[in-house]
Amino acid sequence: MAIRFELCKTCSRTGARAGILHTSRGPVATPVFMPVGTQATVKTLTPEELRDIGAALILANTYHLYLRPGADLVREAGGLHRFMHWPHGILTDSGGYQVFSLGPLRKITEEGVEFKSHLDGGTHFFSPEKAVAVQMDLGADIIMAFDECSPYPSTFAYARDSLARTTRWARRCQAAHTRSDQAMFGIVQGGMYPELRRESAAGLVELDFPGYAVGGLSVGEPKPLMYEMLEVTVPLLPAAKPRYLMGVGSPDCLLEGVARGIDMFDCVLPTRTARNGLAFTTRGKVVIRNAGYARDFTPLDPECSCYTCRNYSRAYLRHLYKAEEMLVYRLLTLHNLSFLLNLMRDMRQAILANRFDGFKKAFLAKSGQESDT
Amino acid sequence: MAIRFELCKTCSRTGARAGILHTSRGPVATPVFMPVGTQATVKTLTPEELRDIGAALILANTYHLYLRPGADLVREAGGLHRFMHWPHGILTDSGGYQVFSLGPLRKITEEGVEFKSHLDGGTHFFSPEKAVAVQMDLGADIIMAFDECSPYPSTFAYARDSLARTTRWARRCQAAHTRSDQAMFGIVQGGMYPELRRESAAGLVELDFPGYAVGGLSVGEPKPLMYEMLEVTVPLLPAAKPRYLMGVGSPDCLLEGVARGIDMFDCVLPTRTARNGLAFTTRGKVVIRNAGYARDFTPLDPECSCYTCRNYSRAYLRHLYKAEEMLVYRLLTLHNLSFLLNLMRDMRQAILANRFDGFKKAFLAKSGQESDT
Repeated sequence: MAIRFELCKTCSRTGARAGILHTSRGPVATPVFMPVGTQATVKTLTPEELRDIGAALILANTYHLYLRPGADLVREAGGLHRFMHWPHGILTDSGGYQVFSLGPLRKITEEGVEFKSHLDGGTHFFSPEKAVAVQMDLGADIIMAFDECSPYPSTFAYARDSLARTTRWARRCQAAHTRSDQAMFGIVQGGMYPELRRESAAGLVELDFPGYAVGGLSVGEPKPLMYEMLEVTVPLLPAAKPRYLMGVGSPDCLLEGVARGIDMFDCVLPTRTARNGLAFTTRGKVVIRNAGYARDFTPLDPECSCYTCRNYSRAYLRHLYKAEEMLVYRLLTLHNLSFLLNLMRDMRQAILANRFDGFKKAFLAKSGQESDT
Repeated sequence: MAIRFELCKTCSRTGARAGILHTSRGPVATPVFMPVGTQATVKTLTPEELRDIGAALILANTYHLYLRPGADLVREAGGLHRFMHWPHGILTDSGGYQVFSLGPLRKITEEGVEFKSHLDGGTHFFSPEKAVAVQMDLGADIIMAFDECSPYPSTFAYARDSLARTTRWARRCQAAHTRSDQAMFGIVQGGMYPELRRESAAGLVELDFPGYAVGGLSVGEPKPLMYEMLEVTVPLLPAAKPRYLMGVGSPDCLLEGVARGIDMFDCVLPTRTARNGLAFTTRGKVVIRNAGYARDFTPLDPECSCYTCRNYSRAYLRHLYKAEEMLVYRLLTLHNLSFLLNLMRDMRQAILANRFDGFKKAFLAKSGQESDT
């Protein structure tokens, strides 16, 4: 077994879970947030910095790495871990989300998807078998079955046909996968239709994956709808296996996701917003370019103990941002990721101490965000 | 005394010197290369990273910091060291080089220079007194007298009048300077005219500065001409005081400068070229985007022990560069600065061991560069 999931505690009031995902590269405490390293680098940071703030599992994008530098090159380099100098856990997505995001640039058949590279317009084809082959070359610890992430909104008929194909593709992915040191997760689809979510979950559970992702959410739908879909889907997934909500990373959504029994998350939000000068703090968001911070010699978040908050003032960060100095993207990325990783750790402690519900309410009240429950 | 210069050894064959510049922020071994932190940050790096590779003294630009974020703001922040979280040595330039580089945007009188901001076109005026006041606000350990860096080429008459004004300005700078915790250096000008270099040096030596810079070089003239000017100027400067060659940072020029008795250097070259994908190595320059490195899984420089060379392959660096990932600018900047700081350390050891001449020849031969002596 490439991974083993140990469920330590389930919250008595909510569905929140604390666990340990055991991998050959060490244990990963759950719930876990995975920083996104699209192109074999979590933008602006070194692996050591990521590790220092508590990252244990990161996500890399199959589609991007397939196009550049190429999966064969990564394989020759000794795999993704060695190529990017990150000896800890890696999960690669299936490429499906990116391929299907290309819109008119792609064409779907039962066999797979033809798409054009966003880099040079060249034509490529991803079948389930190809997506698995690429992920075997990349060599992540957890890989994802090739799925179609149906757009929002989708008609019932489209979502139904799409999920059925995703389930057939999941079976082909399993047949094509030969690396015993990798765990492959299935991805539940079904759009915003509870009935289809049930159908998708049932089909995938039958295939007995070592973990399950809930896909097709956080794609533009209102948050209450996303939470509703989680409430429908999660109870259908085996309690003994890890559950992964793809593409979710705002503090409120992480809390709501955990409350509904999700164990794993990934999102570009903390890293992307950092590069746009936006910091998460315990008092809500800070837009660092604002003139009000010009002479603010206090830290970004007085309650944060990250490297950025220990050593730099808002005034200095604002200066760097206005001067377009690269250091500021590092410092804000480090802070935002620290903030989310600390939030995950705090949630886990709260679950273990049976006080998750209170923790969640207090966090949302303090940061000025409404709970959606 | 804000600084004290201890001369440890002078090479018996060349004029190369090894010394220690004692500052209130710790000793600085010379010859020293100062990384450039134009806008209160050495681009892409943290202060800890700089310190780890051996930086002891960095340069910040008075002109840039005066315009943004403003010298008053830096003073309110507790000075530059605290603002940028660098507790070690800082030298600020006089602003003269940037102001005079503005060309048609500036107007020179005996009183000072009127110039327009490159940021917003606003009109500003720098007198010697103003340049000193700004540098006192910034609070560096070593500051520079306000000078005119005469362009290359300049007529004899222009260079003569300019240096005479620079010497008068130097006197005014001394009169205006009241911070006893800062050392102010004078800057020798005189264009490419040996007679004028002698005149400038004589005038400034009379003012008894605690250190002297050789300015107006590395401004477009052929290297042999720069070396000739150094040979004319350096012997006229007091042996007991540090000598600083401004704006020089290529490995060959550092070796030739040290060979002619220079103790201090600064240059944007290692940091700027890093951001353009160019690395200095013991075997010469590496242009990381070159296709030949796509599958080169060896380090940038097999003889280098910097963080970049210890952990990453040329193939990975090339991938990051092609993908325009910020991490590559960090990794190459760290390598290039490590390379130059190691070169300075090696030169110092060679001087102390009385083998500088041989070291210099061997280095230049290996890196494929001709010695200019």
